[in-house]
Amino acid sequence: MALAQFGARADGGVDRQALTTDEIVARAELVRWGRTLGLEPFTDAAANLFLRLPGWEPGLPPVLAGSHIDTQPTGGKFDGAYGVVAALEAVAAIVAAGRAPRRTVEVVAWTNEEGCRFSPGMTGSELYAGLKRMDDVAMLRDAAGLMLGDAIDLVLAADRDVPLRPLGRAAAAFVELHIEQGTVLERLGIPVGVVSAIQGTRRYRVQVEGQAAHAGTAERAERQDALMAAVRMVAAIDQAALEPEDTKLTVGLFEVTPNASSVVPERVLFSIDLRHPDDAVVDRIDAEIRSIVATLAAPCSAKLRQIQHSPTVTFSPAIRTLITEKAGVLGVPHCELASAAGHDARSLNAFCPTGMIFVPCRDGLSHHPAEWAEPGDLAAGARVLTEVVWQLAENGRG
Amino acid sequence: MALAQFGARADGGVDRQALTTDEIVARAELVRWGRTLGLEPFTDAAANLFLRLPGWEPGLPPVLAGSHIDTQPTGGKFDGAYGVVAALEAVAAIVAAGRAPRRTVEVVAWTNEEGCRFSPGMTGSELYAGLKRMDDVAMLRDAAGLMLGDAIDLVLAADRDVPLRPLGRAAAAFVELHIEQGTVLERLGIPVGVVSAIQGTRRYRVQVEGQAAHAGTAERAERQDALMAAVRMVAAIDQAALEPEDTKLTVGLFEVTPNASSVVPERVLFSIDLRHPDDAVVDRIDAEIRSIVATLAAPCSAKLRQIQHSPTVTFSPAIRTLITEKAGVLGVPHCELASAAGHDARSLNAFCPTGMIFVPCRDGLSHHPAEWAEPGDLAAGARVLTEVVWQLAENGRG
Repeated sequence: MALAQFGARADGGVDRQALTTDEIVARAELVRWGRTLGLEPFTDAAANLFLRLPGWEPGLPPVLAGSHIDTQPTGGKFDGAYGVVAALEAVAAIVAAGRAPRRTVEVVAWTNEEGCRFSPGMTGSELYAGLKRMDDVAMLRDAAGLMLGDAIDLVLAADRDVPLRPLGRAAAAFVELHIEQGTVLERLGIPVGVVSAIQGTRRYRVQVEGQAAHAGTAERAERQDALMAAVRMVAAIDQAALEPEDTKLTVGLFEVTPNASSVVPERVLFSIDLRHPDDAVVDRIDAEIRSIVATLAAPCSAKLRQIQHSPTVTFSPAIRTLITEKAGVLGVPHCELASAAGHDARSLNAFCPTGMIFVPCRDGLSHHPAEWAEPGDLAAGARVLTEVVWQLAENGRG
Repeated sequence: MALAQFGARADGGVDRQALTTDEIVARAELVRWGRTLGLEPFTDAAANLFLRLPGWEPGLPPVLAGSHIDTQPTGGKFDGAYGVVAALEAVAAIVAAGRAPRRTVEVVAWTNEEGCRFSPGMTGSELYAGLKRMDDVAMLRDAAGLMLGDAIDLVLAADRDVPLRPLGRAAAAFVELHIEQGTVLERLGIPVGVVSAIQGTRRYRVQVEGQAAHAGTAERAERQDALMAAVRMVAAIDQAALEPEDTKLTVGLFEVTPNASSVVPERVLFSIDLRHPDDAVVDRIDAEIRSIVATLAAPCSAKLRQIQHSPTVTFSPAIRTLITEKAGVLGVPHCELASAAGHDARSLNAFCPTGMIFVPCRDGLSHHPAEWAEPGDLAAGARVLTEVVWQLAENGRG
């Protein structure tokens, strides 16, 4: 909760977008907290932040635990930050208990998970896991035209005595604790979820080109109204995603040019975000979206660009079993469920054995200032994480 | 065309919004041109600009001729400016011919016709004609928060030796020359249109309130997606205005909050602009729009606010007859037609005998940088205006 002061919104939410001054200050606070615990901070070329508790067999790959601290512009206090702070508390609990782990444990905050300032997100974890190269992302620009590579350099320049280490150092495992951002756990009244998989996602940008004209004079037959073409497309795309009922289809961005009430719109740019746990469903709706954009554009023209395609991923059975065991030992009610949202754990799953733990959040609400999770649930998640991290650090395969 | 340098856009268009510095400079240029012809400039509390050629019976109410010089942000060279410059040329022709009119003739540029910076428009002509009072409009704000009253004061302060006269001085007649902004004259190949009427207009703002949520996790059944509700409304409103085919229905403004691709939209604000020459058609579609907004908002809520209601107006038969006669005498092909766009002549028609003359513009295009009218047509319109103004100044009823 103390992190929420950095980028605090007047409505109780948090606006701490990736690589901003607010994030730099929050990051410095994490480094201070880590140093108080005797942890060694370091970073990498993606500006991922690590806080390291050395193990007694330092040659073994470390166990990573964490999440991200960037938020949406209308974000809350828990999405991301909870996973980083809970990992820090897990390490603090190990230190406080006087226990020394066999493997090194590293608390990590990955860069630009949200992807709202620089789109797409998952930048830090994808670079670390080798899924993208710096050249693939450095030229991404924010709305003000600043390049992601330059924004990372600004963050690294602000680091005081935080050494740089290479991307993609071997890891024994990664565990991420996060609010569910859905209502499954809340409906069941269960405080801890063992995440089995992350649903597949496709994201697009559609640009519709028409012609500006006078609202009072241009006849319907002569109009190339980009907004009406876009509205027809969005309505049809929404219908295409009605089934199955757990399909998530969102048009979150919709920008009109010139956006004046007495001018027929010349251009519309809109986003599409499509997610479902079954890749076959995502692929079927993908085909329908492409067909709708091609057929409903007339008399305007439209271009569809896919900007993300992440098939469904399944997490390590060994780590799922470990989380289930530890929750059981602690007497914390738990169940398996799929994640509806993407997470950095998706990237790490391609790199090392990876698992995720969820806790419920009120009304399933996130990316919203009113985002909230109960203290008892947050504590239960952190206790399970602590035991899982300790077990992985003691026994994880080398 | 020389006016188009003030607020010139790189694409050949003009962005000279009401009461901006660009308009102040264009206004000063008009005053210089008027003084060169021996005309006396003055203004009023609405910052309307007048250039006066005194008649030999100065006690009689004057004949007014002109239009406006403000533009849309993506405007062209002709909408408004042509009518002001042509009226100045009409007076110049009278002066050059050594003729002295019985009545005073005043070239006029009305303030804020377009209504894009301060909405709604027609500010100067409505204040002059007594349809609104300054208190009704002075508190209107532009996007930067500046009040219309303060913007007018800035313009008046920039006037050099331009005396202030009262609003609503009696007038014998008003004539406005304008590009058609439609395709009727172009299709018929006729250079001059005698405007019979201005179609009725209703304008609205609709605000849809939902709830922001995470694009990847919020289930369809739980969502209050303001964009999808707005899209359903806009699609239905567009369908409601399919008949009759000369109905003009435009949604030009559409603003999404927070407008981020992975956040379910919380709020949408959109405009509706509805026009048709038959008031019964406008009233029927008005009822349908209100019903659509009320019934399609769920699970969001929506508020509709009507910001303009201008019934169809019919221009003075005497002035229509006069324009027709003068075009005939000059051998200029002409016909009657209705105006699809609103004009300052609508306001003046409630105040004194008023008429309008149209010339064709290419592809009916206006409010667009590519707006264009043929020099031959522009000259024909100006010749007819000159004869009409001369006749009104000689014989108009006192």
